[in-house]
Amino acid sequence: MEQLTIKTSTHDYPVVIDQGLRFKLKSFLNKDYPSIYIITDSNVAPLYLDDVYNALKANYHVSYSIVPAGEESKSSRVYFDLMTQLIEAGVDRDGLVIALGGGMIGDLAGFVAASYLRGIDYIQMPTTILAHDSSVGGKVAINHPLGKNLIGAFYPPVAVLYDVETLQTIPFQEIRSGYAEIAKHSMIHTPPFWEQIKPVTLDESLSDATLIRDLIHGINVKAAIVERDEKEANIRQFLNFGHTLGHAIESELGYGKMTHGEAVAIGMLFAMELSEQYFSVTLPIEAFHNWLKRNDYPLTLPRLSVNQLMTRMKRDKKTKNQTIKMVLLKTLGEPVIIDMEDRSLRQQLEAFLEKMVIR
Amino acid sequence: MEQLTIKTSTHDYPVVIDQGLRFKLKSFLNKDYPSIYIITDSNVAPLYLDDVYNALKANYHVSYSIVPAGEESKSSRVYFDLMTQLIEAGVDRDGLVIALGGGMIGDLAGFVAASYLRGIDYIQMPTTILAHDSSVGGKVAINHPLGKNLIGAFYPPVAVLYDVETLQTIPFQEIRSGYAEIAKHSMIHTPPFWEQIKPVTLDESLSDATLIRDLIHGINVKAAIVERDEKEANIRQFLNFGHTLGHAIESELGYGKMTHGEAVAIGMLFAMELSEQYFSVTLPIEAFHNWLKRNDYPLTLPRLSVNQLMTRMKRDKKTKNQTIKMVLLKTLGEPVIIDMEDRSLRQQLEAFLEKMVIR
Repeated sequence: MEQLTIKTSTHDYPVVIDQGLRFKLKSFLNKDYPSIYIITDSNVAPLYLDDVYNALKANYHVSYSIVPAGEESKSSRVYFDLMTQLIEAGVDRDGLVIALGGGMIGDLAGFVAASYLRGIDYIQMPTTILAHDSSVGGKVAINHPLGKNLIGAFYPPVAVLYDVETLQTIPFQEIRSGYAEIAKHSMIHTPPFWEQIKPVTLDESLSDATLIRDLIHGINVKAAIVERDEKEANIRQFLNFGHTLGHAIESELGYGKMTHGEAVAIGMLFAMELSEQYFSVTLPIEAFHNWLKRNDYPLTLPRLSVNQLMTRMKRDKKTKNQTIKMVLLKTLGEPVIIDMEDRSLRQQLEAFLEKMVIR
Repeated sequence: MEQLTIKTSTHDYPVVIDQGLRFKLKSFLNKDYPSIYIITDSNVAPLYLDDVYNALKANYHVSYSIVPAGEESKSSRVYFDLMTQLIEAGVDRDGLVIALGGGMIGDLAGFVAASYLRGIDYIQMPTTILAHDSSVGGKVAINHPLGKNLIGAFYPPVAVLYDVETLQTIPFQEIRSGYAEIAKHSMIHTPPFWEQIKPVTLDESLSDATLIRDLIHGINVKAAIVERDEKEANIRQFLNFGHTLGHAIESELGYGKMTHGEAVAIGMLFAMELSEQYFSVTLPIEAFHNWLKRNDYPLTLPRLSVNQLMTRMKRDKKTKNQTIKMVLLKTLGEPVIIDMEDRSLRQQLEAFLEKMVIR
């Protein structure tokens, strides 16, 4: 069992990483919750809902909701439906929400917990590699038709319980999506984290030991940053490396066409190119590109409107005074936030997309 | 000018009470906000929106939304519409929301600010007496069809700017509604606050000086409590004196049939009757009843279903383990939270309602 503690302005919470945690949930509940409400999705429910439910039902009043898998469920409609279900189930202020699933469920159920009766406890039980990132740090949100995560809160969980056995059933596309965020953590962190990721191959040869090692490393990078800047006033924005363009591509393509991590991987490539030019440095773009290629990340894009992408990037939550801010790398492990000049950013984006179309 | 400072876990904020504050807004903004978004309603907009807008437009990028007056606007639909409008107006994380209006606007705009891009600054500009209560303390929310304020957050404003000139235009029904909360503050506070309220008559003879004196006293009671218990873990619940039944009556009648304060006044009468029985004490029920009567508070009710009221009271956010909690008075100025036994509560409610129907 691996465990670390995250400090927040309101409380500390543990991140526990172990096999079979879903069977031992009870020992991690530190309050006598009168009711527990599990929120999960249609992919995860058939696999693990029974395990979680059965681990609790003898001692607690447990209810649950299963929402359709996919980013579309991070909508205002599903959010309000869940509120209705919690009310009807009689969940009160002392209740607990368990977010059982990937990042979508963590964000959605986390925002439900953050705003139900002005906030109740919740536990993150991530079931994807990608969620190693989103489950730690207390950022919760739903989407707006005009952009991702525009409605939400900073609301830390009371625990993150990461049962790595649940990772064994996820498809390779999801593994790729998750490892993109691990790669991101490796690049904004002092080497040799990236050197550790570089040789990893995302296929049947990926061992549990390697996966857990990289997850823990990724969570440690994230935890160190969110502890120092809980509300994203400054350095927490480093975690958005690759996300400015990544989010724009995701929403421009329509959610679900490309995984979050795949879009962020492309965003990282772009941010690295910008960084090389901006700081006249050499970054391991080629090595990263090769790593993505070897691991079957999509590296071509349909023709996308640069205007639309720029508009979407301006809706990024880092944007201030209509100026797009990007996280660039002075060197590996040294991220900085740079105000981008519209015209040159547009030019470089055009050139980058051209390469991605023909590549 | 009267000013007090409220301490919260994240920041301190001033409550400023003065005449003509709406013309001097600029001097109270302590940041260089790139955009300001005013949220107000159809009653307040014709009276004060221009004043607020004009006080800011020379120095800031200002936009606004006018929502229909009335509790119906504290809905998920209006909430999401406002989110869309803020996004389209380009409000970013450094933006500011100004809630210009009564408690409905404060709650709605406050929850918009709390959840827009995971939270931006907002200022409360209350324009009713009732809002002396809701504007202080950071409780923000919207309603759910199954109950009031079920979706929301604890999210303190950056300032409360109370321009008492805006109180001169409010109708007497609103003055009654507001004074009910002042009377509540007087009863949960050590005497002689109630003795100060008892002779007040809510008609043309009500002077600005009396009103301001009572408002400041009420805000002080509230501020002292919320500072000690920001998230309503314990003593903040005292502020719900009269609200358990008050909320239930409000939603059972349908919002808008009776003002919030009028319903709370009836709730206070009931809570005082329960208190007399529970603690074998004598409270100034008769004096309070006379005060309500003299000031034209509605003191009769249509026949209401006791079952429905009990169900609604169980949805109260204080409810735990399906046990209704009521704030009772051991004596004037000494509130306590009591777990009510269902059967006796039901009996006493039946008897109370019987009196209210025939009274």
